[in-house]
Amino acid sequence: MTGNLYTLSEIVDKKFAHGEEVPQNIINSIKQIISGGGFIGMAQINPIAGNIEYNAKKIAKYIKYACKIGLDMIVFPELALMGYPIEDTIDRHPIIVDENIKWLKGLAKITIGTTALVGFIEPRLADSEGKKYFNSVGILKDGKIAGIIRKSLLPNYSEFNDYRYIEPSPVVGLQPANTLGCFDRQNIADSPKIFEKYGISICEDCWNNKEFFDKNLYEKDPIEELAQEKPEIFINCSASPTRAKKEQLKHNMLSFIANKYKTPIVYVNQVGAIDNSSFDGSSRVFDTNGNLIARAKSFEEQLLIVNPLKNIGKIYPLTGGLDKSLTEQKIFTLEYESDLERTYKTILQGIRDYFKKCGFKRAVLGLSGGLDSTVCAVLLADALGKENVFGISMPSKLTSKESKSDAEQLAHNLGINFTEASIRPMVDTTTECLNNLFKTVAEKWDGRYKASFTPDNVQARSRAMFLWGISNEFSSCIPIATSDKSELYMGYATINGDMSGGFAPIADVPKTKLFAFARWLNNNRPEKNAIPEAIILKKPGAELAIDPKTGKPLIAEDALMPYEFLDEIIWRIENKNEGYQDLINTKFVYENHNPVSKEQKTEWLDKFFRRMSTALYKWSILPPSVIVESRSINKYDYRQPITSSGIDYKGINEAEITKELNSV
Amino acid sequence: MTGNLYTLSEIVDKKFAHGEEVPQNIINSIKQIISGGGFIGMAQINPIAGNIEYNAKKIAKYIKYACKIGLDMIVFPELALMGYPIEDTIDRHPIIVDENIKWLKGLAKITIGTTALVGFIEPRLADSEGKKYFNSVGILKDGKIAGIIRKSLLPNYSEFNDYRYIEPSPVVGLQPANTLGCFDRQNIADSPKIFEKYGISICEDCWNNKEFFDKNLYEKDPIEELAQEKPEIFINCSASPTRAKKEQLKHNMLSFIANKYKTPIVYVNQVGAIDNSSFDGSSRVFDTNGNLIARAKSFEEQLLIVNPLKNIGKIYPLTGGLDKSLTEQKIFTLEYESDLERTYKTILQGIRDYFKKCGFKRAVLGLSGGLDSTVCAVLLADALGKENVFGISMPSKLTSKESKSDAEQLAHNLGINFTEASIRPMVDTTTECLNNLFKTVAEKWDGRYKASFTPDNVQARSRAMFLWGISNEFSSCIPIATSDKSELYMGYATINGDMSGGFAPIADVPKTKLFAFARWLNNNRPEKNAIPEAIILKKPGAELAIDPKTGKPLIAEDALMPYEFLDEIIWRIENKNEGYQDLINTKFVYENHNPVSKEQKTEWLDKFFRRMSTALYKWSILPPSVIVESRSINKYDYRQPITSSGIDYKGINEAEITKELNSV
Repeated sequence: MTGNLYTLSEIVDKKFAHGEEVPQNIINSIKQIISGGGFIGMAQINPIAGNIEYNAKKIAKYIKYACKIGLDMIVFPELALMGYPIEDTIDRHPIIVDENIKWLKGLAKITIGTTALVGFIEPRLADSEGKKYFNSVGILKDGKIAGIIRKSLLPNYSEFNDYRYIEPSPVVGLQPANTLGCFDRQNIADSPKIFEKYGISICEDCWNNKEFFDKNLYEKDPIEELAQEKPEIFINCSASPTRAKKEQLKHNMLSFIANKYKTPIVYVNQVGAIDNSSFDGSSRVFDTNGNLIARAKSFEEQLLIVNPLKNIGKIYPLTGGLDKSLTEQKIFTLEYESDLERTYKTILQGIRDYFKKCGFKRAVLGLSGGLDSTVCAVLLADALGKENVFGISMPSKLTSKESKSDAEQLAHNLGINFTEASIRPMVDTTTECLNNLFKTVAEKWDGRYKASFTPDNVQARSRAMFLWGISNEFSSCIPIATSDKSELYMGYATINGDMSGGFAPIADVPKTKLFAFARWLNNNRPEKNAIPEAIILKKPGAELAIDPKTGKPLIAEDALMPYEFLDEIIWRIENKNEGYQDLINTKFVYENHNPVSKEQKTEWLDKFFRRMSTALYKWSILPPSVIVESRSINKYDYRQPITSSGIDYKGINEAEITKELNSV
Repeated sequence: MTGNLYTLSEIVDKKFAHGEEVPQNIINSIKQIISGGGFIGMAQINPIAGNIEYNAKKIAKYIKYACKIGLDMIVFPELALMGYPIEDTIDRHPIIVDENIKWLKGLAKITIGTTALVGFIEPRLADSEGKKYFNSVGILKDGKIAGIIRKSLLPNYSEFNDYRYIEPSPVVGLQPANTLGCFDRQNIADSPKIFEKYGISICEDCWNNKEFFDKNLYEKDPIEELAQEKPEIFINCSASPTRAKKEQLKHNMLSFIANKYKTPIVYVNQVGAIDNSSFDGSSRVFDTNGNLIARAKSFEEQLLIVNPLKNIGKIYPLTGGLDKSLTEQKIFTLEYESDLERTYKTILQGIRDYFKKCGFKRAVLGLSGGLDSTVCAVLLADALGKENVFGISMPSKLTSKESKSDAEQLAHNLGINFTEASIRPMVDTTTECLNNLFKTVAEKWDGRYKASFTPDNVQARSRAMFLWGISNEFSSCIPIATSDKSELYMGYATINGDMSGGFAPIADVPKTKLFAFARWLNNNRPEKNAIPEAIILKKPGAELAIDPKTGKPLIAEDALMPYEFLDEIIWRIENKNEGYQDLINTKFVYENHNPVSKEQKTEWLDKFFRRMSTALYKWSILPPSVIVESRSINKYDYRQPITSSGIDYKGINEAEITKELNSV
C-alpha cells in the first residue's frame, strides 16, 4: 500500500515540477492510503531570496494539495517564505518583511483541514531590546496563525550571518501569545496547546547536543529543552547548504538525537542555490531508535510523505559523495572519486539557479583547450542546455594547433555552439598603443619591470573583451570566469581577464580534483568521453608566455609548484588551520612518490604564502561562485582584510621577540 | 605648566611620526610636569591588520616612552596588537593569535614603572563552550600580565562582525585568574585588585546605556555593571570608524555616561584605515559632570596625556563635519558643506593607508574631464603626492576638445603627471573583431539587441586596458576606479571598465555631494581653484554614446534621472529604510524647485528599483573603497543576494494576496 504511495507521489512531484494539475484520481488514491492519519508532508522547496510572491505561491500549491489529500501536517524549510539566506536585505528594505507577513496571513487562510509549518521573518515588538527580527516558523491551521516557533541558536560563521539582524529566541517551542506583536488577535488561534505533541525547532537549534559534539558553540541546547516536554515527534525546519563531508555528520547527529530522546525526528531542508550556497535537500526522518526511515532526493524539489510514528517512509538514494565517511575529514587525499557526484550536482544546481533566479539563459566562455575551461563547458552544457552555451576559441600567436583542435573537438562532443575568433589583431593594436604609452610614462616614473606580465595580461583581457562584448550584444547571456581554486590561491588569474565573468563555476574546486572530475564526467555522463583525452593529459599552462628555459609555452606547475603539493597546502590550511611551521614538518602526499628537498619545500611554501597574501584583493572581486569544499575563499564565506598582506605566517620565537622589543 | 606639557608633547608626536628619538631634555621636562601622578597617556595608534610585529613595535615605543616620563598608565585602542577589524583571519590562520600572545608577553616585560592597556585576541580555554576567542585588553605592569578585560557586547551589523569568532564575555571588569588559559601563572600578577579604581571596557560595551538610547541592541549594560564597583575612572578602548553624523552621537553618549555615574571617562580610539573602514581617532576625556576636558586630533596618530581627576587635558579641534548636529540625521539635505572636511580626511586616510599597508606607492587613473575622475585625481595627489599620480586622458572619437583641455588643465594645476593616449586604434580594432564575431554568434543565437551598449563598453574597457597595463608594467602602481555612489546604485558603470581598479576612492560619495566637494576642494586646499570651473559646471556624461535626440554626447541625467532626485532616493532608502510607496508619497527636495508629475515620479522610481536590482552583481565585484556615509553599498558593510533581483519593492495589498492565492 505504501509502495503505491511513493509511486503516486513521484507522479505528483513531476506534475508540480511541470506546473501541471495533479489528476483527481491520484489525489483520491493518496487520500485513501493516508486516511488513517498521522501523515506528514516534507516539502523541500527551492525558494528565491526575497521574492515573497514567488515563494508564497509555491508554498500555497503544496498547502492546497496537502488539504486535498488530508495530510495531518505539511512542513516547509527554514525561512521558506523569504528564502535563506536573505542577508542584510531585511534591514535596508523592511518592505519585504511586511510582505512576508501579509503573505503568511494569506497562506493561513488557505490552510484548512491541515497544519502547515512555514518559515518567515518575524518583526519583533517595536519596544523590544535587541535586533529587529526573529527567524520564525508559523504554525498555520484553519485560517489562522495557530502558533509561532523561533530560532534560538544563530549561526554566524562561514556563509551564515544570522546574528546580523536576528535576535536569538530565549524561549524554545511554542511562543507566548503576548509576544506575537505582528499579528492581530484575530489571526491567532486560541489553543496552541494542541501542538505540544510536536517539538519544533529551526536548523541550528538541533546542532548543539552536548553529548554528540566534543565542543559546543552555544550554551543552550533547544532540543534538550524541547525534550523535557515529551513531544511525540521532533520537527526541524532547515536551510543547510552542502559542503564537502558535512552530510555524514548531519546524519549521525540527527540519528543520535532521535535515539537519545527516543523520539522520531522529521528534518526538512531547503533545496536549490542562493548565490554562492547550494542546498542539497535530502530531507529525512529517523525513528525512535535513530534509524533512518525516510529520505527525500538530493538537489530536487520534492514532497515526501511520511508517518514517523508508524515508520512509514521511503529512503531515496543520497547523491554519491554526500555519504562520504567522517573519518576522511581530517586526512588529505587525492582520491576524489567518492565526492565527485556531489561536486557535480552542487555546481550544476549553483549554475542553474543563479541563471534562472537572475533571469539569464545563456553563457559564453573561452575554450582554451585547457582543463578549467573544459570542465566549465561541460557543466554549463549540462546546467543550461547545450544550445545555450557558446564556446569561443580565441587563439593568440602562442596558442598551439592542439589547443585549438582540442577545444573544437570538445565543443563538437558536447554539441555546444562554437567558433574561433583570433585575438591577434587586438593584441597587436593594444600592444602598440601600450608600448607608446609606456615610453611616455617611463619618462616620469622609474620602476619599469624588465620582464613584466603585461603581454600575458593583454591576451587574457582581450579575450574577456570578446566575451563581455557578446554578453552586451545578446540578451540573457553572461560570460563565465573559469578560474579554479588552486590558481586563485596563487593569484594566478588575470584581473579583467580569465577571472572576470558573471559567474565562476569552479572557483572552489582545486586543480587535482578537476583532473579527477574530468575523468568522472567522461565516465558518468550519458555521452561518454566528451572530454578529449588530450585535454586531461596535457600539463596546465595558460599559453600566455614563453618559458625562457624551454622556448615553449610556460607550464603552470613550473611557474607555481606541483599542483599536488599546492592543493595539500590549501587543504591543510583550510581544514586543519596549519601554519608555516606545521607545513614544513608535514610529510606531503606528494612526497610519497617525489623526493622534495628541504630547500625546495621552503621555496614552495615561501612562494605560497607570498602569493596568497597578494591574492586577497583578487578574492575580493571574484564573481559569484558555488561553495563546494568544506572551507573556501568565497568572499561570503571567508573575509580577510586586504591590507593584512604583511602578515608574517612564519612566526617568531619568544627570545627573538625580547630582542626585537629591546632594540625598539 | 600644562600648557607647556602640550607644546612639548606635540614635539614628541612629531618625533614619533618621523621615527626619531625623543630628546632627553624633553623627556625630563615632561617627567617633571607630570610628576604629581595621576596622568594617563591616550595612545591612538594606526595598526596594520594582522601584522603583529609592526603593531607590537609601535606599541613598544610608546610604552618605553611612558616608562621614561613616568605615566601612571598608557592606554591603546581595541585590538591594538592585532588591528581592528581582523575578520575571519584569526580562524583560518591561528598562528597570528599565537603571535599576538607571544608579543603581548614581550610587551609586558618592557612595561616597568607604568601600566599599559593593550588590546589583543585571547584564545579561550580549549574545553570552553562557544567561540574560540575573546576580544580582550591586557593590563601590563612590571613585567607581567596583571589582569585581563574582555568585551561583552559584540557588534554584528554594518562593517562589524565581532560575533563570527569572538565569544561575548559574561563577566565585565577584571577577569577571574582561573580563566586566563593562555598565560602561565608566572605571567600573571598576584593582586589585580589594585586596578579596581579603573572601570575598563571595550568599545561596544559602552554603547548600550538604557537611559540614553531609545532602543537598545543588548540586554546587558557593562558600564552599569562596572559602575556598581564605584571606579574612579572609566576607560574604554575602542576601534570606531567614522561614518556620517556618528560623532555627535558618540560625544553625547560618552558625556551622558560620565555625568550619569559622576565618573570621568577616558575613551581611546583607533586611527587609520583598514581596507574599507577609516577610523578617526579623536580620543577624548569627559569629566565627572560630562564636560569634555580633552580630545586628541582626528585622523592622526597622537599620544595625548591627560589627568582625568585633575581635569588636565587639551581639546584639539575636531575635523569639521565630525561635529555635525544630530538633528540633521533624519533630514535629507543638499547642504553638504558641513561634512566635507570629514569626507576629505576620511577618504585621504583611506587611500593613504590602503596604499601604504599593501605596499603600493603610485596610482594611475583616466582623466575624462568629468567630475568623478577629477575629484579622484585631487584626492590621490593629496594622499600620495603629486609625483605619484599619473593622469591619462584617453580620448575616443566622442571626446570633446573641452574634455581634453579640462583634463590637461586639471593635471597642470595639480602638478600630477599627465599624458594623452588615444583609444581610437584599440576601439577600431576591437569593434571590427567584435562585429565579425557577433555575425557568427547571431547565426546561432537570437536576441541580438538593436541598440546595445557594446560600443560604449568597448571604450570604457579599452581605457581600463591602458590603466591596468601601466599597473602591470610599473612597480608599486595600481589603477583607480572612479565610480561614484549615485552611478553605482544605477549600475551606471562598466564592468572591466571605469568600475574596475585597485581602489575606488569615491564609491561611497553621491554625485550631488561630489559637486559640493569639488567646490570645497577649490576653496580649502593650499592651491586654490585647482579644479577648472568648467568641470564643475558641465553636466555629467560619460561621452560614450551619442543621444539620438540631440545628436550630442548623452547626458547622464537624461539616461538616468536628475541627480538631486536620485540622491534623495538613495538617502531615504539607506537612512530611513523607505520603500517604494513611501517614496511616492514623499515630497522630494528636488520638487521644491522643479515640478514633477506623478507619471514622471513613477517612471523615475520604477527605473531606480529596476536598475538597483540588476546592479547588485556590480556591487559584489567593486574594488575596495572607503565607507564615508552613514550607510553604504560597500560589500563589507551591506550584503544582499544577487539572486534577489526579483524582489517586488512595491508590495501588494492583502485583498490582492487573497485573490492571488485563491487562483494558485
